Amino acid sequence: MALIVQKYGGSSVGSIDRIRNVARRLIETQQNGNRVVAVISAMSGVTDKLIGLAHEMTEHPSDAELDVLLATGEQQSVALLCMAIDDMGYKAMSFTGAQAGISTYGSHTRGRIMNIEPSGVLRALDEGNIVVCAGFQGVSHDGGRIHTLGRGGSDLSAIAMAAAVKADLCQIYTDVDGVYTCDPRVVKEARKIPVLCYEEMLEMASSGSKVMQARSVEFAKKFGVVFEVRNSMNNNSGTIVQEENPAMESLAVRGVSIERNQARVTVSGITAPVAYTAIILSALAKAEINIDMIVANVAHDGVARQSFTMNMNDLGAAQAALQKVLPQLGDKARLETESGLAKLSVVGVGMRSNSGVAATVFQSLADAGICTGMIATSEIRISTTVDAADIEKAARVVHAAFRLDRVSA
Amino acid sequence: MALIVQKYGGSSVGSIDRIRNVARRLIETQQNGNRVVAVISAMSGVTDKLIGLAHEMTEHPSDAELDVLLATGEQQSVALLCMAIDDMGYKAMSFTGAQAGISTYGSHTRGRIMNIEPSGVLRALDEGNIVVCAGFQGVSHDGGRIHTLGRGGSDLSAIAMAAAVKADLCQIYTDVDGVYTCDPRVVKEARKIPVLCYEEMLEMASSGSKVMQARSVEFAKKFGVVFEVRNSMNNNSGTIVQEENPAMESLAVRGVSIERNQARVTVSGITAPVAYTAIILSALAKAEINIDMIVANVAHDGVARQSFTMNMNDLGAAQAALQKVLPQLGDKARLETESGLAKLSVVGVGMRSNSGVAATVFQSLADAGICTGMIATSEIRISTTVDAADIEKAARVVHAAFRLDRVSA
Repeated sequence: MALIVQKYGGSSVGSIDRIRNVARRLIETQQNGNRVVAVISAMSGVTDKLIGLAHEMTEHPSDAELDVLLATGEQQSVALLCMAIDDMGYKAMSFTGAQAGISTYGSHTRGRIMNIEPSGVLRALDEGNIVVCAGFQGVSHDGGRIHTLGRGGSDLSAIAMAAAVKADLCQIYTDVDGVYTCDPRVVKEARKIPVLCYEEMLEMASSGSKVMQARSVEFAKKFGVVFEVRNSMNNNSGTIVQEENPAMESLAVRGVSIERNQARVTVSGITAPVAYTAIILSALAKAEINIDMIVANVAHDGVARQSFTMNMNDLGAAQAALQKVLPQLGDKARLETESGLAKLSVVGVGMRSNSGVAATVFQSLADAGICTGMIATSEIRISTTVDAADIEKAARVVHAAFRLDRVSA
Repeated sequence: MALIVQKYGGSSVGSIDRIRNVARRLIETQQNGNRVVAVISAMSGVTDKLIGLAHEMTEHPSDAELDVLLATGEQQSVALLCMAIDDMGYKAMSFTGAQAGISTYGSHTRGRIMNIEPSGVLRALDEGNIVVCAGFQGVSHDGGRIHTLGRGGSDLSAIAMAAAVKADLCQIYTDVDGVYTCDPRVVKEARKIPVLCYEEMLEMASSGSKVMQARSVEFAKKFGVVFEVRNSMNNNSGTIVQEENPAMESLAVRGVSIERNQARVTVSGITAPVAYTAIILSALAKAEINIDMIVANVAHDGVARQSFTMNMNDLGAAQAALQKVLPQLGDKARLETESGLAKLSVVGVGMRSNSGVAATVFQSLADAGICTGMIATSEIRISTTVDAADIEKAARVVHAAFRLDRVSA
């Protein structure tokens, strides 16, 4: 008898009918001889409505009470899902984050999971229940206050619950069939990837394939939780994410990710002798701007130059933040910006043992007449910026160059 | 420094503006040098909406999960109220029933309070917070499941919280100024009663003055909680309800209650030798009909007769239930019903030491040409049925006969 954790997001439980669909899937999983824990989000739209209510009350709602308010969204969906299961003649029991023993630390609205004490959940399973647990929430380990877990929090709840109950499998249900070699809307030959290792999933998450937040993948990696990304509207097998194994290295590149709406900021003419990188990065951090690629040229003739990419939405704030610190960077320091960029990344653990990957990427782009800009690499990823207008063509030629359309292990 | 518990019902927190109004009142109470605990209901309408959602899911939602769903209503209102207080520059902390240490027993949707462990609430008060606690809910003492407390549950939460924290005063805010000598819409000379004892409040609650459910008054009496019924929209003093004291006996009658929509059922021709009362009352109980007055004539010539009053809405169900058991009551047993009745009650602990109260009631009604029907009495209450058409006139003449329009201690 396997123990399976299934996570359903807000759109999978977005209406009474969809909740019934989830109920049927859970019952079917139990009928197939498994013990089942569901972790679910608030019905889609509910969280936004609650945030709206809070902002009707005050421009700056207290984070602590925002958590109390938002947590009601999942509490409603777990209750409704249990009613649906009960209505179909099966036993179910709902758990809030606190009831499920999910203890947290960190700030309100951005809580982190410290520990899960699963005895209540396990007892309910022993009694034959389908357990339905509220995702996205827990209770602070020191004060007993309600915490929500921020973006991607329900995935994290599911992964952590799977670790705590020692689940045989954790299934993350979404509205896509799994992780693809590239976005199928861009590259029609894109295939679903059957197996990925955590590192590849992490690199793809941080380079545009927004199936899951990196924090959940990191948590799964840390606790060795094998999970599968699947579609809640069909029965297709999905993408399994697990520990790296030697067979994975046979393939140099696993997938191509693209990210649009990128912008570049360059600070040039830097003559400040030391610490100029710290000044620049602190200014951007204080303005809460997530920068992505960093290219720092070594100074020649005592003049340095640094470039960053970021989401286009952050460009204005980044300019404002950097303008303030320009005087600290030298008399000639100035800002230069470029928007209308996109980023292409190729990802694969096999890159470590296969040489020539970078060469293939840039040769194929050059052959197609596509100019590349900034370049950044990790051990298992190569990223480059291109003009936004070129990104789809770039994805297609790189996808083809690595023959990602062919089925392989 | 006094500790005050204030309870606000659903209409008092029914909109963002009204929640702000409650926030201001709580802050003012704290600014006057008090420690303040608020116990509040869900925003008016929210509970009904959630029940509607449950019934969209299934005709018979599980009571356990209905509790989980309904409890989100108060959780939302406590969060919003705390945001409002925070926005005005004061410290507040919200508590769900579970967080407030309210442990319960009994059935789902009709939980009863077993105990309140107030250390969390007291600690929050020590830290200078206005404590805002969700009424109507608690957590089952044995299973950690969410319980709601049924009708009048928020009043009960407030009274129980006041007992647990040893509050100096418990204020129940409603949309009326307090308990009146009679309904002011019927008797324009009706006055607000400054002080009542628990027994009087109980008799008035069960005889038509629906300011509070009897269960909350009983709880207050059991734990000696002094409470005041007040209006949340003004600063008028309300009605204080407390232990009986000798001074209260100087006034024979404290108030006149009226209850409309009454009906009478009479079973006559009963010849069954024993247990006929048990047969009749069991049949009515099984049909979940609350009967009010009971008049049981002694059998003469071996034939007995019993009459009951009840709410007119229950009349059909009562007839159906009794029809089934008629054969067990004898060959000649038959049913007789009368609707279009109302009930008038006079209440006062002073009745015990003042003779002639009944005589005054029936003399004044007779002088006004009003026929009375069934009569029932307790130690501190006299009730009689009259034709519905006569009830307002009856209330006025009895109110006048006891000079209830005059201000007194």
